[in-house]
Amino acid sequence: MAVSLGELAVRFGCELRGDPAALVDSVAPLSNAGERAVTFLANPRYRQMLSETRAGVVVIDKKNADACAAPVLITANPYLTYARIATQLHPVPVAVPGIHPTAVVAPTAKVDPSAEVGPLAVVKDGASIGARSIVGALCAIDENVTVAEDVRLASRVALYKGVVIGARTIIHSGAVVGSDGFGFAPDRGTWVRVPQVGTVRVGADVEIGANTTIDRGAIEDTVIEDGVKLDNQIQIGHNVRIGAHTAIAACVGIAGSAVIGKRCQIGGAVGIVGHLSIADDVAITGFTMVSHSIDRPGVYSSGMPHEDARQWRRIVGRFKRLDSYIARLTALEKAVGVSPKAASDEAEQDK
Amino acid sequence: MAVSLGELAVRFGCELRGDPAALVDSVAPLSNAGERAVTFLANPRYRQMLSETRAGVVVIDKKNADACAAPVLITANPYLTYARIATQLHPVPVAVPGIHPTAVVAPTAKVDPSAEVGPLAVVKDGASIGARSIVGALCAIDENVTVAEDVRLASRVALYKGVVIGARTIIHSGAVVGSDGFGFAPDRGTWVRVPQVGTVRVGADVEIGANTTIDRGAIEDTVIEDGVKLDNQIQIGHNVRIGAHTAIAACVGIAGSAVIGKRCQIGGAVGIVGHLSIADDVAITGFTMVSHSIDRPGVYSSGMPHEDARQWRRIVGRFKRLDSYIARLTALEKAVGVSPKAASDEAEQDK
Amino acid sequence: MAVSLGELAVRFGCELRGDPAALVDSVAPLSNAGERAVTFLANPRYRQMLSETRAGVVVIDKKNADACAAPVLITANPYLTYARIATQLHPVPVAVPGIHPTAVVAPTAKVDPSAEVGPLAVVKDGASIGARSIVGALCAIDENVTVAEDVRLASRVALYKGVVIGARTIIHSGAVVGSDGFGFAPDRGTWVRVPQVGTVRVGADVEIGANTTIDRGAIEDTVIEDGVKLDNQIQIGHNVRIGAHTAIAACVGIAGSAVIGKRCQIGGAVGIVGHLSIADDVAITGFTMVSHSIDRPGVYSSGMPHEDARQWRRIVGRFKRLDSYIARLTALEKAVGVSPKAASDEAEQDK
Repeated sequence: MAVSLGELAVRFGCELRGDPAALVDSVAPLSNAGERAVTFLANPRYRQMLSETRAGVVVIDKKNADACAAPVLITANPYLTYARIATQLHPVPVAVPGIHPTAVVAPTAKVDPSAEVGPLAVVKDGASIGARSIVGALCAIDENVTVAEDVRLASRVALYKGVVIGARTIIHSGAVVGSDGFGFAPDRGTWVRVPQVGTVRVGADVEIGANTTIDRGAIEDTVIEDGVKLDNQIQIGHNVRIGAHTAIAACVGIAGSAVIGKRCQIGGAVGIVGHLSIADDVAITGFTMVSHSIDRPGVYSSGMPHEDARQWRRIVGRFKRLDSYIARLTALEKAVGVSPKAASDEAEQDK
Repeated sequence: MAVSLGELAVRFGCELRGDPAALVDSVAPLSNAGERAVTFLANPRYRQMLSETRAGVVVIDKKNADACAAPVLITANPYLTYARIATQLHPVPVAVPGIHPTAVVAPTAKVDPSAEVGPLAVVKDGASIGARSIVGALCAIDENVTVAEDVRLASRVALYKGVVIGARTIIHSGAVVGSDGFGFAPDRGTWVRVPQVGTVRVGADVEIGANTTIDRGAIEDTVIEDGVKLDNQIQIGHNVRIGAHTAIAACVGIAGSAVIGKRCQIGGAVGIVGHLSIADDVAITGFTMVSHSIDRPGVYSSGMPHEDARQWRRIVGRFKRLDSYIARLTALEKAVGVSPKAASDEAEQDK
Repeated sequence: MAVSLGELAVRFGCELRGDPAALVDSVAPLSNAGERAVTFLANPRYRQMLSETRAGVVVIDKKNADACAAPVLITANPYLTYARIATQLHPVPVAVPGIHPTAVVAPTAKVDPSAEVGPLAVVKDGASIGARSIVGALCAIDENVTVAEDVRLASRVALYKGVVIGARTIIHSGAVVGSDGFGFAPDRGTWVRVPQVGTVRVGADVEIGANTTIDRGAIEDTVIEDGVKLDNQIQIGHNVRIGAHTAIAACVGIAGSAVIGKRCQIGGAVGIVGHLSIADDVAITGFTMVSHSIDRPGVYSSGMPHEDARQWRRIVGRFKRLDSYIARLTALEKAVGVSPKAASDEAEQDK
C-alpha cells in the first residue's frame, strides 16, 4: 500500500521537507532504506548515516533534520510517529470471519459471527469469542473462557478454564494463561496440592509474548491490568497483580502474590520475590533480584556486569573474604588510634 | 457442593467452634470470605483480619482461634487442613471415558476404556494411556510413551518417544518431556550431534508446570522421582536425577547430570551447574547459582538484593577495585607494623 | 542394528584392540555397559571404571587404552568418535513421505513429495516444505514459511509468517520462531506497538531446543547462522544475529539487536543486554550478565558461587557497606601518612 508524504504529514502532524506527492510503501533501517521506504532516527548513535541515506523519507526531530540528505518528516517524537506510520503501512491482520471446518467448537461456546477460529483450534463449552477476534491455529480455549473483541491469539495459545481476555489484547504462540499456581502444603516430608480456584483476568490492550506463562490465582484472581506489555518467556505466579501500562522484558519471573505498580519498566531476566509490592513508575534494570518491597519511584539494580573470568574469580575470592579484611582494618584502627565512626560518617556525607 | 461444618470437623479431625449444621460450598480469602465460604489463617501477617471476618468458617490453629469473629475449625496445621477441605469442595476433574472423534490414536496404541483422550490429541504407536487418565486437547504423545493411571495432562503437552509418566502425575500446558539433551562433540570449530538414547522416567504424584522442559538422557535416563513438584518454565538437562518430594520454583535451570536429593526446596530462578550433587533436605534461596556440590542439609544463597541504581553502580565500582583496597590495607599494615594473620583469626572466631 | 568392531575401526579410523568379528548393537555408560554395547571414556573422572568394564568396546584415547579391561577403539578424540558410532547405531528418524490425512495443508503450500507432514499439523498458504523434511504432529507453519530439505520439526513447533529454516536443522517441541519482537514507543504513559516487519532466517545444521523463542526482526531480519546450537528455553530478541557454530546453553536471554560472534560458547542462564556485540570465539560462563560489548576472544564471567545462607547474608551486608570501609581505610592512610596510590600500583603489578 503506497501513501504520499503529504498525506503522512497531515495525518501524523509532521512538518514535511520534501515533495508531498512522493510515495512510500514500506519501512527500512536508516542504513539501507530505498526511495520508497520510510525510516527514522531515534538513537543518536546512527546520526552519521543521515548524510548518506537514500530513504524516501526520514522521521526525525527538528534538531537533526538539517543533517539529513533525504526528505524529512519532522516531529517531536520520531520513534512514536514512526510506529504510527509503520502501522499504517503494515496493518495488523484482520479476522476472516468464520470457524475453520477442522476447528472443534463446543455446542455451548459462543463465537461472534465476525470472529475467526483457525484450523484445528479447540474452543470448549461456555467459552465466548468476541467480535473480530482471531483464535489462531491449534489454540486450546478451555471451558468458560471469555475473549473480548479484536483480540488476536497467534497459533498454539492455551487459555485455561474461566480466563478473561480484554479487548485488543495480543497473545503469542505458546503462551499459557491460567495454569494452576504452585501451591502445596507440606505434610510430613511430602506435599499436598492446594486447589487453585481463582482465574486470570487480562485487561485490554495487553500484549503477552511467546511461551509466557501466567498462573491462575489460588483463591482470588491473578490480574494483568490494561495496557501491560509482557515479552517472551515471562513467568507470573498466582495472585500477582500488574498495574496498567507496565512493560516487562523477557525472561522475568514474578513470584506469587507480588503486586507491581502502574507504568513500571522491568528489564530482562529480573526476578521478583513473592508477597511484596512495587510502587508505580519504578524501573528495574536487567538481571536484578527484587528482594523486598519498593515504595518509591526510581531505578533499582543488582545485576553484576561481566568481567574477564580470571579477574572475576580473583574478585570473588576477595569478596568471600571481606570479613577478614574488615577485621584487619579494625585491628589497624585500634593500633593507630583512629575512630571508624568518624570515617564512616564522612563517607555517608560524600554520597 | 455444600458440606456442613460438622462433617468437615469429623472428616479432617478438627475441633469445631460453631454450628455443626451450617453449610459451606466454596473457598475465599480471609479478607472477603462470605458466610458460605471456608477460609484459613496460616500467615500471621493477616491476623488482624480475624476480628472482622464474616467467613462461614476459618481453619486456624489453637492459639489464634479466640481472636476470630467467625466459626473456626481448629487444627495444628491450618494450611494443610485447608488444602484438604478445598480439594473436597473443588475436586479435580475426572476423566470422561472415551476418545474424542477428532483425536488421532494409532492402531497399536492402548488407551484404557476409562481414560479420556481430548479433541485433536495425537497418540502414536505403542503408547499406552492408563485407567482414568486424561490426555488434554492437542497433546502430542509420541511412540511407546507410557502414561500410568489417574494422570492428568492439560492441553498441549508433548511427551517424546518412550517417556514414562507415573500415576496421579499432573502436567500443565506447554510442558515438554523427553526432548533431546544438549549433547554435541566439538569437531574443528563445528559440532557433531551425540544421539540422546535415554528417556525420561517421571514418578508418581509429580506435578510439572506450564512450559517446563525435561530432556531425555544421553545414554541413561533422566529421572524425576515420586512426589516431585516442578513449577513453570523449569529446564532440566539430560541425565539429571531429582529426588523424591523435592519442590522447585519457577524459572530454575538444572544442567546435565546434576543429582538433586530428596525433599529439597529450590527457589525461583536458581541455576544449578551440571555434574554435581546436592544432598537431601537442602534449601536453595531464589536467584542462587549452585556452582559446586552440596553435601550437607542447610540453606544456601547467592542472590544479591536490589539497591538504588546509583548506589548500586557505586558499590559495584568499589567491588571491582577490591584488589587495590586490599593492597592499600596491606601497605598500611606494613607501615604500622600490625600482623594481618592475627586480625583474620579473630574475625574467624567471631562468626 | 548390529555392527562388527572391525567395521567400526575401519569406518571411523580407529586402532582396534579386540576381536574384529565381535558385534555391538547399542550404547551404554561405562559403568554398566554389557558385551554388546559401545561406551567411551572422555572424562578422566571415570577412569577407575576401566578395569572393571564388561563393555563390548570402549572408545578411548591412546594413553588410557592399556588400563581398559575390555576391547578398545583407540582414537585421538573419543567423544567425537563415540558420537559418530552412536549415530550409526541410533540413526535419526527418516521422513515417511506423505501428508497425514488429518493435517491441514493450504492449497498454495508446496510440500515436497518426499517430505512428511504429521497428524494435525497446519501448513498455511505459500509455505514450502523441502525434500525429506519432517513436520511433526500439531506444528503450526504460517504463511510463506520456507523449510529447506532434511529438516526435522518435532511436534508442536510454531513458525510464524515468512520464517526461513535451513537444511538439516532440527527444532524441538514448543519452540516458537518468528513471534513479534518487543517493540513499543512510549506515548504519555502508554505504549504504541511498533510493527515488526522483519522475519527470522535460520541457517543450515542449526538445532533449536524445546520452548526456545526467537523473535522476528523489527525492520531487518533476526539471523541464526549455520551450525548454531541452541538449547531449551532460550530467548532471542528481535534483530539479533548469532554467528556460525556458536553454542548456547539453556535459559539464556539475548536482548534485541545484540550481535554474537562465531564459535562462541555461552553458558546456561546468561543474560546478554541489547545493542552490543561479542567477538568470535568468546566463552561466557553460566549466570553471567554481559553488560557491554566484548571485542576480544576470552572467557568472561559474573556468576556468584553459592554460599551458606547465613554467611552469604553477612558478606552481602559487608558488601553493601563497602563505602564506609573504604572511607575508614582512607582515614587510616591519612593518619599514618601512607600513600594509597603506591599500594594500588603495586597491586596492579601483582596480577
